[in-house]
Amino acid sequence: MVTVTRIIDSKTEDLRALRSQVRAEYEGFRARKLALDMTRGKPSPEQLDLANALLALPGERDFFSQAKEDVRNYGGLQGLAEARALFAPMLGVTPDRIVIGNNASLAMMNDCIVWALLKGVPGGTAPWSQTPQPAFLCPVPGYDRHFMITEEYGFRLIPVPLNGNGPDMDKVEELAADPAVKGIWCIPKYSNPTGEIYSPETSQRLAAMRTGAPDFRIFWDNAYTVHHLTPRRHEVANILELCEKAENPDRAFVFASTSKVTFAGAGLAFFASSAANVRWYLGLAGKRTIGPDKVNQLRHVRFLKNEDGLLRHMDAHRALIAPKFDATIAALEARLGGTGVAKWTKPEGGYFISVDVVDGTARRIVELAKEAGVAITPAGATWPHGRDPYDRTLRLAPTYPSLGDVRAASEVVALCILLAAVEKQCESQEKKAAHES
Amino acid sequence: MVTVTRIIDSKTEDLRALRSQVRAEYEGFRARKLALDMTRGKPSPEQLDLANALLALPGERDFFSQAKEDVRNYGGLQGLAEARALFAPMLGVTPDRIVIGNNASLAMMNDCIVWALLKGVPGGTAPWSQTPQPAFLCPVPGYDRHFMITEEYGFRLIPVPLNGNGPDMDKVEELAADPAVKGIWCIPKYSNPTGEIYSPETSQRLAAMRTGAPDFRIFWDNAYTVHHLTPRRHEVANILELCEKAENPDRAFVFASTSKVTFAGAGLAFFASSAANVRWYLGLAGKRTIGPDKVNQLRHVRFLKNEDGLLRHMDAHRALIAPKFDATIAALEARLGGTGVAKWTKPEGGYFISVDVVDGTARRIVELAKEAGVAITPAGATWPHGRDPYDRTLRLAPTYPSLGDVRAASEVVALCILLAAVEKQCESQEKKAAHES
Repeated sequence: MVTVTRIIDSKTEDLRALRSQVRAEYEGFRARKLALDMTRGKPSPEQLDLANALLALPGERDFFSQAKEDVRNYGGLQGLAEARALFAPMLGVTPDRIVIGNNASLAMMNDCIVWALLKGVPGGTAPWSQTPQPAFLCPVPGYDRHFMITEEYGFRLIPVPLNGNGPDMDKVEELAADPAVKGIWCIPKYSNPTGEIYSPETSQRLAAMRTGAPDFRIFWDNAYTVHHLTPRRHEVANILELCEKAENPDRAFVFASTSKVTFAGAGLAFFASSAANVRWYLGLAGKRTIGPDKVNQLRHVRFLKNEDGLLRHMDAHRALIAPKFDATIAALEARLGGTGVAKWTKPEGGYFISVDVVDGTARRIVELAKEAGVAITPAGATWPHGRDPYDRTLRLAPTYPSLGDVRAASEVVALCILLAAVEKQCESQEKKAAHES
Repeated sequence: MVTVTRIIDSKTEDLRALRSQVRAEYEGFRARKLALDMTRGKPSPEQLDLANALLALPGERDFFSQAKEDVRNYGGLQGLAEARALFAPMLGVTPDRIVIGNNASLAMMNDCIVWALLKGVPGGTAPWSQTPQPAFLCPVPGYDRHFMITEEYGFRLIPVPLNGNGPDMDKVEELAADPAVKGIWCIPKYSNPTGEIYSPETSQRLAAMRTGAPDFRIFWDNAYTVHHLTPRRHEVANILELCEKAENPDRAFVFASTSKVTFAGAGLAFFASSAANVRWYLGLAGKRTIGPDKVNQLRHVRFLKNEDGLLRHMDAHRALIAPKFDATIAALEARLGGTGVAKWTKPEGGYFISVDVVDGTARRIVELAKEAGVAITPAGATWPHGRDPYDRTLRLAPTYPSLGDVRAASEVVALCILLAAVEKQCESQEKKAAHES
């Protein structure tokens, strides 16, 4: 057994021995013909089981809201008052500032972008489509589906590095001075995929900064706000309050959903914002639909009951998924600790572990893992247009597979990271030697 | 009692007597302080009760599709195969040509308009927003919510008269030759509000006509396709087949929903079209959402089971609502038959009765009815921008109130129609007399 030290400091003969050994081990995994999937942040069947009561709710004789609306019929564009009240603490606003959509907060974000392009937003002087090339700030690494919406509708996507407390605010402030820059994608808590939590200072600067566009919007996707992995329920600043205090009351659109609370495909989505933005949203949503699915809202109210019910439900999720995150981190630590070839996050919430590997090896690792029967998110997915200029960041999603599978898959990934790093270092030393000789 | 003959032929003294008598009767209704609503095409509570089994479906242990997808989780953008199969006969296409949305077909129409504007549609050379002022054909009287979508996004709305077999096709063909005309709103069966059924010839001409725009689209909202009011299940031509045969395969977007089958607020919506249009739709919908609410699809499959279950369910609706249509028509007949002041439809399906009154009295009638405690759809609502140039068409929606309320409301409306007509005729004769003297 070769002792693994910092790969970069190893002697060529040691590296070659290590490469042979790791390759042999890799071939052993390949022979096992695994079929494991760590690509997407999907709840596991056991997590979904926690909400199975929803499948028989609200029951055949229960179809009136507190206000005596028949939830089966048309109407109720903003959502049931009791459902808005239930999620108001989670969203940090009063219920009148919440709109409940159907099953996807992504759809609400998409609609805001589309409406902004075609109609404009409060505070703007024209629809965004009249800006020659509107641009959007994309903190990286980030969520591919965010970037794809703005890509689809022709925005220029400007990556901004995340620094562990949210985006690099010096950069953001500099870029936002350009009037063509219309907004920024943010996942303020347990960010996808880095797990980082925006600091109060980051939030404050976002709320208060000068922007070139008077109608600049923060798309504040608080997707993981109650999705803790430790007993500590981290908080982020209340962006709507900060914006109001900074006299930019309409700057933030807040989004959230129960996709990773109840059912990923059949939950509730939320939009929360200033009074003017809520009016704007409802005005356009009211052209699109007579109302959302209120039966599903009543179902959620009956099931979760109140904020306490929601938080206890999230504790049950944590009990199921925290061990999977631990297993992945343990596998990375066991194989890669001390080698200097990778850094990984230890998130305290959310759905992802982000791994930075040796530059130029992320794509190779994804291929190696695939060959060995382990699917991970394509390298580059966390960057605009799917192109990571450093070919560096891997996103691991440990929630969906069983604990045993997470262990096996994480071992394979860790081995592939090591193999790719050793291969690269060997090549580099061999080239250097050839050059010198 | 004054005998009512054709009002227009009546002598002035008879008309004055009639006016006094009708006014007295109207005051009698006003004194009763009714509060009745015939404004919107909403199912009644009894109709919704027919689907109450949905409120406890699919049940706590039933969450797999035939293809073993976990319907609780993400995915399944096009909709469950068994749900598409169930509704394929209703839509007249194979299941692969169907996309299932959430609870509102209006939302799917809205999205098609928005995507056409921002991205263009198959066969087009540019997004519709690049046409200086895109226009849309609006058969009148028609559905206000259709017109409002195209109004909201800046289309020029061009009314085209309906002639009892669908829109006046000579007019449509003439107008569609303009490349700025991008599409037409159609409700081909039991049209809202006229109840008319597009003839095979109308459909054929729509499918085959030359259009100035190569990317012209028929928005074929088959909202009432299984919503019969008589034992006869009327058919309309299969527009997708006609378009294909006419070598305009991508011309029609077909929409439908179960809003008036199961729950108005919690049903399923459908888009059906050519292979190219379905690919286009899914490409853009896939940016907007990871998938629709598949639990609700499974719920509908478990409840309706198959085409036969669907048709029997619609028979139960008919049993509840046909008597309400009969009551309205009887009230109109009793009060207005032979007077020559109104013509009304006798629909064999759908949700509305359309009444053409004396030109220039529709708004007055809505006011009179309101004063007497009966809400009916604002006059003009069936025309683009809510402006009926003749002030002629009233839309009555008899499904929601109880049978007794429908009777009472219809009597009031009939009386108001008569009163407005008599008032107008008296005025006109009095003016004429003053002019001659």
